Amino acid sequence: MTDRILCGAKGRIRQTTRKEAKVEALLTYAAHIRKAASMSASATPVRVIEETPAYWRVVFEYPPFNILDATIFECLQDLLVRIYASQRLRVVVFESAIPDFYLAHFDLTGKTGNITTAVGPSGLPILMDTFVRLTKSPVVSIAKIRGCVRGGSSEFVLACDMRFASRENTRLGQPEVGVGVHPGGGGTERLPHLVGRGRALEIILSANDFDGDTAERYGYVNRALPDAELDAFVDALARRISSFDRRAIDAAKNLVNQVSLPSADRLLDAITSFETALTWPETQQRVQALLRLGLQQDVEFEKRWPDNLGTLLDA
Amino acid sequence: MTDRILCGAKGRIRQTTRKEAKVEALLTYAAHIRKAASMSASATPVRVIEETPAYWRVVFEYPPFNILDATIFECLQDLLVRIYASQRLRVVVFESAIPDFYLAHFDLTGKTGNITTAVGPSGLPILMDTFVRLTKSPVVSIAKIRGCVRGGSSEFVLACDMRFASRENTRLGQPEVGVGVHPGGGGTERLPHLVGRGRALEIILSANDFDGDTAERYGYVNRALPDAELDAFVDALARRISSFDRRAIDAAKNLVNQVSLPSADRLLDAITSFETALTWPETQQRVQALLRLGLQQDVEFEKRWPDNLGTLLDA
Amino acid sequence: MTDRILCGAKGRIRQTTRKEAKVEALLTYAAHIRKAASMSASATPVRVIEETPAYWRVVFEYPPFNILDATIFECLQDLLVRIYASQRLRVVVFESAIPDFYLAHFDLTGKTGNITTAVGPSGLPILMDTFVRLTKSPVVSIAKIRGCVRGGSSEFVLACDMRFASRENTRLGQPEVGVGVHPGGGGTERLPHLVGRGRALEIILSANDFDGDTAERYGYVNRALPDAELDAFVDALARRISSFDRRAIDAAKNLVNQVSLPSADRLLDAITSFETALTWPETQQRVQALLRLGLQQDVEFEKRWPDNLGTLLDA
Repeated sequence: MTDRILCGAKGRIRQTTRKEAKVEALLTYAAHIRKAASMSASATPVRVIEETPAYWRVVFEYPPFNILDATIFECLQDLLVRIYASQRLRVVVFESAIPDFYLAHFDLTGKTGNITTAVGPSGLPILMDTFVRLTKSPVVSIAKIRGCVRGGSSEFVLACDMRFASRENTRLGQPEVGVGVHPGGGGTERLPHLVGRGRALEIILSANDFDGDTAERYGYVNRALPDAELDAFVDALARRISSFDRRAIDAAKNLVNQVSLPSADRLLDAITSFETALTWPETQQRVQALLRLGLQQDVEFEKRWPDNLGTLLDA
Repeated sequence: MTDRILCGAKGRIRQTTRKEAKVEALLTYAAHIRKAASMSASATPVRVIEETPAYWRVVFEYPPFNILDATIFECLQDLLVRIYASQRLRVVVFESAIPDFYLAHFDLTGKTGNITTAVGPSGLPILMDTFVRLTKSPVVSIAKIRGCVRGGSSEFVLACDMRFASRENTRLGQPEVGVGVHPGGGGTERLPHLVGRGRALEIILSANDFDGDTAERYGYVNRALPDAELDAFVDALARRISSFDRRAIDAAKNLVNQVSLPSADRLLDAITSFETALTWPETQQRVQALLRLGLQQDVEFEKRWPDNLGTLLDA
Repeated sequence: MTDRILCGAKGRIRQTTRKEAKVEALLTYAAHIRKAASMSASATPVRVIEETPAYWRVVFEYPPFNILDATIFECLQDLLVRIYASQRLRVVVFESAIPDFYLAHFDLTGKTGNITTAVGPSGLPILMDTFVRLTKSPVVSIAKIRGCVRGGSSEFVLACDMRFASRENTRLGQPEVGVGVHPGGGGTERLPHLVGRGRALEIILSANDFDGDTAERYGYVNRALPDAELDAFVDALARRISSFDRRAIDAAKNLVNQVSLPSADRLLDAITSFETALTWPETQQRVQALLRLGLQQDVEFEKRWPDNLGTLLDA
């Protein structure tokens, strides 16, 4: 197997943003030097491990929390180029190297670059383009979930073809409404089809975390598995699918997509509405309150911040 | 907190119907004088308890069974006017003050006034207008279910944004087909999206009751909770959501609605077909058999009448 | 109750095909003479047992494995003529007389006659016409599942109105992608609506078997019941529904169908894509490998063949 580093020189996201992101990444890295010392020298936010030419593992390792920012989107865009170019690939498993964080949530400090203003190859904004091209790609995407995965990151796993979660270590949710906005990357469009209107509204309007068992019961994930069995289950499934013919997989996925993907019209409504909500003063007040309380800085707060949303403006 | 009485002078439903309904209500009241004596003087079919300006509890108390008739629809229409007018409201929880009946079912003795012939503010018949405006309202509606809730009442809870049910004390179903008709208030349109075609057809064609656990497993309700935990769970959820910004809630709900609500075309087909079915002689035969057996009169029969539907015309 | 033999002289499928099918059926019969000797002289692939004029049981008994071939489709076409002609029928329960095989899978030895080239009464190819007319029929269809039911046979049960499965003895799946093709009889269209995109893709792309409990958890079947309770549960449900009025059932089912059936456009895309996939050399390689390993011949291999799909071309 081979390790390759993504986020090369040809990234689609503005150079200025990338520079800022790199500076920030360096600062974060310094703050976690002890952890970093034990990591491979080739540590990079999104690492591809080619188990076989047909089966890749993609590992998020962007300390401290795997925050979903412009850097991650740039890496995912690069990955999609490689996925679409590969003729032998069948399955990509997305996982995290940071124990309690799968992919924490959309960056709330402004490091989102031009993901809502620049367009990707599909003609849609980068945020949507990334998720839409993942859903339509000719290969199978599997999210293997351990740790926190909220908001835009929940929308990332909803854009994967399948989701398998650790029973003991999953905190999955769409907390946006508790932050004064709403999901803007497909959550409001994908969840109702997956879990029905009632549970979709509960997930989105409660802004709560859902553990592995509840997520399975609701259909938010395919299955929750005991943490000790998760790796073996997903690996066996990925190897099995990777033995199948690429055009059979592509044709089957294409037919399912025809009856199960939201339209671009609906996704554009969501992103436009989300952009508007970000400008509301009450939203900014909530974001600032969360950042003051330790969001994206304090590991304990980062693990459980949705618990605070019901009383956020009381203090 | 403040109690307010609904069903004021400005109800949209015809005066004659309202008079009839009031006479009936008085007669029913007299028959249950012992129970009534222990109730507050302000007892009214649909009572609003303003826990906070952002969180209202709406309590059905229309002895003996909370039958869904023109009076209840009039109250719900008045409530919708108040909901749409309020600028501070975020959440409405619907519950019952009658232990074994949430909202029994559509009235089968003819006290349905003009709910299928007069139009509401949406331009749709009152029956549909009530449920449709509830689904599209800018506030969150939660059904907290204890007791029997069947037919048109099941369609009421399906029009709520979320449903939480007592594990021990829920009898939920769509028994219409066993009475010779079929759901006409959205059940045939909302259930397939929520539980899939197979389970929707089982619910509708079996005309059976579903207990809390089965309803949860099917996705008919969000969750079934132990009865002792139901109030605290729903209250915490309602208070949490009531702390969020109203326009974030509204925008999120609007996006979900775009991909999850049935069209008016489909709902009109259902109500038209339902009106026709009510005229069939075999339907009238079944309705009369049920009334003779004690429907809407005998409390024990009212609790378990769907059990009799498979042998209704045998005697 | 009365037994009737289907597959009469008026079958819609070409005479040549019927002759071939009959020759094959005779050969199969000879190979299983011991088993056949213990069966009724009237043994026929699809037998109708009229429990009452309103409730029929349809029994598959086409040794050794209830393979879904042109003969079975011819019988189902004949059955549909009888179903549509009957004025008293309300419910049809489909079951198997062969313990470990409900309806094994689409024939892979070529005995599929003209089911994809000739059209049925709906104007669609026989394969689709059979399933589509079953979904739209005015009577209720219930699949009572014991044993293996894969591929085209899974698509048959998905076209039934409800599915109840033995908890201990169910192996349900869509293994087509592991054979180099993909579902072509509605699986890719019906599953996403029933179980959501994520679980539909897992079922279709994993090409794995699903047991009763998992199928219930996913919503693939309505319920999995302990094997000892399955017959009584389905019989009680069928008798109950059979007591209801035929036009109430028809009207209810018609309304549900309006919002839950896939369009003919989508079904035609699937069948066209399936026909193309059958011509791919890699598909033929996989089919031949399975036949060499004992598919449709060796009972033990037939029970567990999807287990081999992940390593099919390794040997």
